[in-house]
Amino acid sequence: MTAEQYLQRAFLLARQANPKAIRPNPFVGAVVVSENGEIAGEGFHQKAGEAHAEVIAIHQAIGHGAKLDTCTLYVTLEPCSHTGKTPPCTDLIIKHRIPRVVIGSMDPNPLVSGARILQENGVIVEKLLMPDMVALNDTFNINQIQKRPKYVLKSAITLNGKIADSSGKSQWISNEESREHVHQYLRTAADAILTTAKTVLRDNATMNIRVKDQPEQELSLIIFDRNLALLEKKHHHHSVFYTRNQSKIYLVTDKTGITTELPYVEIITIPVQHGLFDLEMLHKELLKRNICQVLIEAGGSMNAAMMDAKAVDEIYTFLCPRILMDNAAINQFNSSQIQPMDDAIRLQLLESMTIGEDILLRHKVIH
Amino acid sequence: MTAEQYLQRAFLLARQANPKAIRPNPFVGAVVVSENGEIAGEGFHQKAGEAHAEVIAIHQAIGHGAKLDTCTLYVTLEPCSHTGKTPPCTDLIIKHRIPRVVIGSMDPNPLVSGARILQENGVIVEKLLMPDMVALNDTFNINQIQKRPKYVLKSAITLNGKIADSSGKSQWISNEESREHVHQYLRTAADAILTTAKTVLRDNATMNIRVKDQPEQELSLIIFDRNLALLEKKHHHHSVFYTRNQSKIYLVTDKTGITTELPYVEIITIPVQHGLFDLEMLHKELLKRNICQVLIEAGGSMNAAMMDAKAVDEIYTFLCPRILMDNAAINQFNSSQIQPMDDAIRLQLLESMTIGEDILLRHKVIH
Repeated sequence: MTAEQYLQRAFLLARQANPKAIRPNPFVGAVVVSENGEIAGEGFHQKAGEAHAEVIAIHQAIGHGAKLDTCTLYVTLEPCSHTGKTPPCTDLIIKHRIPRVVIGSMDPNPLVSGARILQENGVIVEKLLMPDMVALNDTFNINQIQKRPKYVLKSAITLNGKIADSSGKSQWISNEESREHVHQYLRTAADAILTTAKTVLRDNATMNIRVKDQPEQELSLIIFDRNLALLEKKHHHHSVFYTRNQSKIYLVTDKTGITTELPYVEIITIPVQHGLFDLEMLHKELLKRNICQVLIEAGGSMNAAMMDAKAVDEIYTFLCPRILMDNAAINQFNSSQIQPMDDAIRLQLLESMTIGEDILLRHKVIH
Repeated sequence: MTAEQYLQRAFLLARQANPKAIRPNPFVGAVVVSENGEIAGEGFHQKAGEAHAEVIAIHQAIGHGAKLDTCTLYVTLEPCSHTGKTPPCTDLIIKHRIPRVVIGSMDPNPLVSGARILQENGVIVEKLLMPDMVALNDTFNINQIQKRPKYVLKSAITLNGKIADSSGKSQWISNEESREHVHQYLRTAADAILTTAKTVLRDNATMNIRVKDQPEQELSLIIFDRNLALLEKKHHHHSVFYTRNQSKIYLVTDKTGITTELPYVEIITIPVQHGLFDLEMLHKELLKRNICQVLIEAGGSMNAAMMDAKAVDEIYTFLCPRILMDNAAINQFNSSQIQPMDDAIRLQLLESMTIGEDILLRHKVIH
């Protein structure tokens, strides 16, 4: 087996983790290979606060009686060099005199300088950087570099870019299979949905996770609700107010000193500037609550505001075989700014898929 | 070989015709098969006014000494039974006592009742109707049934359905390869482009056919130009006024008695009702001029007007990785009517294709 193949093995292991179990940590897989090419130990990071991939792989190799001072460690991400909830992995590697470490991607966290520390301690470090390994930790990388959650915006639009008719009705632009896709993949991957009180009150949607043949799952909701309309008792029959055991409803407002008796409702107070919430503050509040990936399911105004704030990383668009020939129908992005063609926002097409007669497009936003 | 296979052979032959050479006729292929299963003759309709497929195939079979009274004729379209530029094919079949005819699709022309006439004359007629053969003659079928050209609408849009910025600038939403696709396939298939004087004057586009490594080809233009702005000398530097030998510029107006000295410009006078051209009249005028398939390349208002008149059969959309976040940017369909979700226009997805980072969607409009 080649170095690439050992690293691919580590990558397959890394991907086995449940992304929500490891938050806010990255996916990591590690393989210890002995001098004769045999895999002596392997592992992946499974749960935040528990052992790192390198630790599991090294301990397994020790258990198998491997001579670590002749082994190579393959690891999908640069080993950590700082003390978090567990001691630095670099210490363990150095302690066991592992002579060579092959790394598949670099840690963007400025606190991590594992590669340098290993080299300073005589370890041969090879960087075999692989785009797939960087992509796997997209959420982690955005959390680290941008200091905010990864934001994914989802819309179901007609061929001509409308998300609802002029009365606000959007049921249903997309087909049933597309809507299932939203639950099974987009909501399942998210730590919370971001939306507005207006959308919640109008659509009366449950906004949880419903996948065929599986029990319904809770999903946290972040709701822009400046006037705290959702605290009014008359709205508590709305579907989002199901009994929550593992999730919360976060009401975002600029009002201070407000409390609520609803056990699963939490108020996040954020200042408003020029009529818009200070998103930098929101980013911090969400990361503090371990909300690392957010799915935006909202109307045209919030969509536009998040785009304007450069707080959208990916757009999932379900393009449906309908036309709403009505200038007053709701646009995917509701914005009264003037944007000349040369300033159009650029996207990168990542993926396209046919779902019945809908087309699902996944675009990266080039900010 | 089975009956389906002989019919498929006839279908492959039929498709070899140049669609513009056979206008307004359909694609037809025919195969004469002798008792022992050998192909005794075959042919396809190649040029309007010249021999039909059945005639070519039967004459070839005669030349090969086939005993026609023991042969089967496979033909992709019901044989004609009326005298047009050539005598009825049914006469020829009956005259040569061909005992069995297998038909792949029916002729929608009410003047054609070939199958019935053959049966009345003792010919066994089998209908092995194949959707591909109906689809091949889509333009012909629309011409016959709807009494109008087939209209194909083409747009390049941003992800959010905009065809130009608020100043009207559309260069370039789509990528170069997509634009080449328009020339190579959409314009090449059309007998004329339908547009407006506004678009011609603003874009200064040549609107001919340019395909890599091939000489430029002319293409007729139908221009909605109520005030005949394009007759003004000051506009004659515009790119559409190249010297035309095989194509025309048709200016559509409601003005009568206007003449022009430009040899390749023709005025089509059509009444205007409620500010809109009488499209029923236009349909007739175009068919009269053997314009059987029209490509609409225009702005949002003409797109909407043609849709409203149920005069769009297919929509080709180049969906491009851009967002124009500006409510004043030009919509693919500019319409001030109110259209509730339940009345949204339904489309049928026929095809989708990735062209670089653009997605080309082909939809049929369900009227």
